[in-house]
Amino acid sequence: MTRATLTEHIRSKKSYLCVGLDTDPEKIPHSLRTSADPVFEFNKRIIDATHEHCVAYKLNTAFYEVSGSSGWESMQKTVEYIPSTHFKIADAKRGDIGNTSTLYARAFFETLSFDAVTVAPYMGEDSIRPFLAYTNKWTILLGLTSNSGASDFELQSHRDGLLYESVIQKASQWGTIENLMFVIGATKPEWFDHIRAIAPNHFFLVPGLGTQGGSLQEISKKALIKDAGLLVNASRAVIYAGSGDDFAERAAAVAAGYASKMAVYLNENASV
Amino acid sequence: MTRATLTEHIRSKKSYLCVGLDTDPEKIPHSLRTSADPVFEFNKRIIDATHEHCVAYKLNTAFYEVSGSSGWESMQKTVEYIPSTHFKIADAKRGDIGNTSTLYARAFFETLSFDAVTVAPYMGEDSIRPFLAYTNKWTILLGLTSNSGASDFELQSHRDGLLYESVIQKASQWGTIENLMFVIGATKPEWFDHIRAIAPNHFFLVPGLGTQGGSLQEISKKALIKDAGLLVNASRAVIYAGSGDDFAERAAAVAAGYASKMAVYLNENASV
Repeated sequence: MTRATLTEHIRSKKSYLCVGLDTDPEKIPHSLRTSADPVFEFNKRIIDATHEHCVAYKLNTAFYEVSGSSGWESMQKTVEYIPSTHFKIADAKRGDIGNTSTLYARAFFETLSFDAVTVAPYMGEDSIRPFLAYTNKWTILLGLTSNSGASDFELQSHRDGLLYESVIQKASQWGTIENLMFVIGATKPEWFDHIRAIAPNHFFLVPGLGTQGGSLQEISKKALIKDAGLLVNASRAVIYAGSGDDFAERAAAVAAGYASKMAVYLNENASV
Repeated sequence: MTRATLTEHIRSKKSYLCVGLDTDPEKIPHSLRTSADPVFEFNKRIIDATHEHCVAYKLNTAFYEVSGSSGWESMQKTVEYIPSTHFKIADAKRGDIGNTSTLYARAFFETLSFDAVTVAPYMGEDSIRPFLAYTNKWTILLGLTSNSGASDFELQSHRDGLLYESVIQKASQWGTIENLMFVIGATKPEWFDHIRAIAPNHFFLVPGLGTQGGSLQEISKKALIKDAGLLVNASRAVIYAGSGDDFAERAAAVAAGYASKMAVYLNENASV
């Protein structure tokens, strides 16, 4: 998906919501557990109920790998089910030497038809280039993450700044604003002004809304740019909004709630 | 597997060779391609032919994920086929926020029965702790990698030293020498003296022998400690030693060649 198309979807839906399909087999409502593929069945219902309110879906690979090959099958079926109007993210945090990253890129962009994959920066340029080599596919590189461990390395002094700043600056030379986004954690909205100054034109994928506690209003105010440049993810807060048979309706209501706030913030940011 | 057991296998076999099952479906001999699961069939033959000469097998997950769910099935069958005498490594380079890393740990240590998984350090302590929480399982953290991109972040100044040094120092406080190893790239053997000084008692997993060009003799001289503390991996150099029907015999010959050198180096290191 191109940046222009993604932005078009954001504008027409007035939403930059990404729904995280972090589907824990143990949290699926009992009524679905007897189906042939409960995880896929759950995802299908969530997608049916929420697709009007969001522009992207993010599948965290850990939640599928925990079930082994059948989990990968659920992931594959889910990716195929997501409408082509939606931006599909594999939250896989991969990264390895060049020839291995080439295979990961093929796994997520070809074997599975994701539009984007999250990548860890530790191993540097040749571990990231194979993902960037695809046309109309996106590499979403870890910048500043939302977990407490961000303080161990990401937020430590590195060369002339902090490690995550160095990652954003270097990677911006490898990719473009058309194929590279950054993961920016939402727990510290006060840092977004500074991060926007380092990467004024890149899309940010902001996880951590809801359960992890980010403030949508603050983040939006600081991070939205003229063509949005922002995807904000909510996983558990949406998909586990209800635990009974009305889980899909409850998920839709929460997603609609986020989207209606996003419409206001997009409107306030008159340039979008 | 405990450290004592791993060391016992190294001593009795006089080998610290790890064979990397980076099995590329496109490089499998034609005679195997009509079998139901060519990747598993290839791995089985390689394991049968090499297990006497090595103490560990390492499966790089990218090579399996490129085939989607059927690739994960080949991986699962391969892990189950590896004898219990051998140390089984998932070269997965995972790492995510705590609750996600918990699922990755479960995927590789429970759903699949690996003894160890490689983990990327970027996201810090809470992304690594869930792997360390397992008894008799190992976290193999990226320290200094063997690719050119190591110079982008790993080898840049970070706090009082370099990033990879900071990773080794910090992580040594989170894990012990009984559950934590480090990946140390083999292309720069002259650095092993220094790295051994930082982590005098940890096991190192050294990739890059053969195709990537590390020197076994130099690495062994600098990195072997009293209970070995070293696994040296060869992937392509062993498994693609031949491309015809004698591929398994050729792989065995290369593995035996490495092992016979290792016996000499272990012997020279009289304390092992």
